[in-house]
Amino acid sequence: MTAVLDVPSGAQPRVPTPSPGDPRLARLSLNQRTTANWSLREAIDGAVAAGIGAIGLWREPVAEVGVEQARRWVDDAGLRVSSLCRGGFFTASDPDERTSAHADNVAAIDEAAGLGTRALVLVPGGLPAGDRDLVAARQRALDAIGALVPHAVERGVTLGIEPMNPIYAADRGVVSTLAQALEMAAGFAPHEVGVIADTYHLWWEPGVHELLAGAGERIISYQVCDWITPLPADTLLARGMMGDGHVDFTAFTRAMAASGYTGDVEVEIFHADIWAAPGADVVATLARRYVELVEPHL
Amino acid sequence: MTAVLDVPSGAQPRVPTPSPGDPRLARLSLNQRTTANWSLREAIDGAVAAGIGAIGLWREPVAEVGVEQARRWVDDAGLRVSSLCRGGFFTASDPDERTSAHADNVAAIDEAAGLGTRALVLVPGGLPAGDRDLVAARQRALDAIGALVPHAVERGVTLGIEPMNPIYAADRGVVSTLAQALEMAAGFAPHEVGVIADTYHLWWEPGVHELLAGAGERIISYQVCDWITPLPADTLLARGMMGDGHVDFTAFTRAMAASGYTGDVEVEIFHADIWAAPGADVVATLARRYVELVEPHL
Repeated sequence: MTAVLDVPSGAQPRVPTPSPGDPRLARLSLNQRTTANWSLREAIDGAVAAGIGAIGLWREPVAEVGVEQARRWVDDAGLRVSSLCRGGFFTASDPDERTSAHADNVAAIDEAAGLGTRALVLVPGGLPAGDRDLVAARQRALDAIGALVPHAVERGVTLGIEPMNPIYAADRGVVSTLAQALEMAAGFAPHEVGVIADTYHLWWEPGVHELLAGAGERIISYQVCDWITPLPADTLLARGMMGDGHVDFTAFTRAMAASGYTGDVEVEIFHADIWAAPGADVVATLARRYVELVEPHL
Repeated sequence: MTAVLDVPSGAQPRVPTPSPGDPRLARLSLNQRTTANWSLREAIDGAVAAGIGAIGLWREPVAEVGVEQARRWVDDAGLRVSSLCRGGFFTASDPDERTSAHADNVAAIDEAAGLGTRALVLVPGGLPAGDRDLVAARQRALDAIGALVPHAVERGVTLGIEPMNPIYAADRGVVSTLAQALEMAAGFAPHEVGVIADTYHLWWEPGVHELLAGAGERIISYQVCDWITPLPADTLLARGMMGDGHVDFTAFTRAMAASGYTGDVEVEIFHADIWAAPGADVVATLARRYVELVEPHL
């Protein structure tokens, strides 16, 4: 089951591509990195053309035009900003690096507020070079989050801890399970610290459906893509289109619904083939897969 | 931190290679797959030449000479058989395949008994093609283990559930955490069903040290190798030599000691570079790394 951009050759899609205006697309969000070759302007236009209700923004492309301009564009387009990616990377052992990471995260909070989104996605960061103390790195991540809370509250932004597939525990994200992220968040109020639920990172976790269903307002973002095998050589680009892999979107989405989640559903796919394809084709495919595999269970 | 077979060029090893007879090697075991190009006879001779106390056997090379011959060789060499790899692969949805897997696992139990080892390593198996119900696959694994218990008890073999890194959850091992494996085992007596603790699979698990320390006699095998990044393209050959990656062997081994574990420590490394190197060099390196990184904390 490798990534494909369309139905198997000769076959008809099981559902037709939904038209703009289809109410089933209202909660669908295009994460900018899924169409990585599109500029912010192109991504906004592409989302609108497809009838998608929201967009998940990344700081770098936003910075190219500025937060105010980006905000005007998404507002004028009638889109919601479902989240801002990403803050975090605050596991350094060097105090100066941690100070610098804090300042960068303060800026990210301001950007999220300026863009009108409540959800700031935090990728915790990995182990410092040569450092094998994962327990201590996790504690530094928690401490860094705590230090950001007052500013986040002031700006009306919720800090979203993203638990990441253990494949990234060493070099990208030391928070490895939903259970762990929820435990970290539990020391704060739900409007202060929440968690990001991403199928790619969490699909394998024992008891994940029960954890999701009981997580209530702690879940501030739902991100979807598939776990495909064999895993592509570049593990940072190993995410597949929904339906191309092993994730049980029915069970996961039902558990999200049981949690009371009423927010957007972001499609976030990092894959070289998908990045190489025309953006409009990618958006048409993801809209179809979303309507087939995810939306009916929300 | 990629796999190396020796110290960095120009540097001296931090500890000298231990000599045969060094008592620190008494609990070290060479898993056959670490020196994959050696025959069983060569692996036995190589372990003896290095002064290693035990060997972890695989069914396929044992089958080439037969269980009785293999048993004579290891007995004559004065080695213990620390484990037999591997049974399992019992997550098929097709009943005939499950029946066939049961029969194969009955044979594996007999082979373990014939070889004089108590520990049969069970790799649960992945999701059947096109099947996304991980919860059900895990239940089938548990049911299959339960069905094997009477025969295992009769032969004096303990079934060892191997929780596997979630990177393999889809295609190899649906049991993903030590916590989950311990929960599965808890329905049986410790002499019936235990767990395999492998640093590669478990190093990232939140709370793993506490889980290990409290697992007592449930842990029937300790396997070591390192998690290296960037992850090699073939994830089945992505295991590194201890010290080349991110695993905290000090903390993990201390937790194993706290559990009361007094068994062997198997070095099991799957890596193309290590397989391509002369077996005697690999054994010398792993013995040195073991004495430096693992043995002091047992």
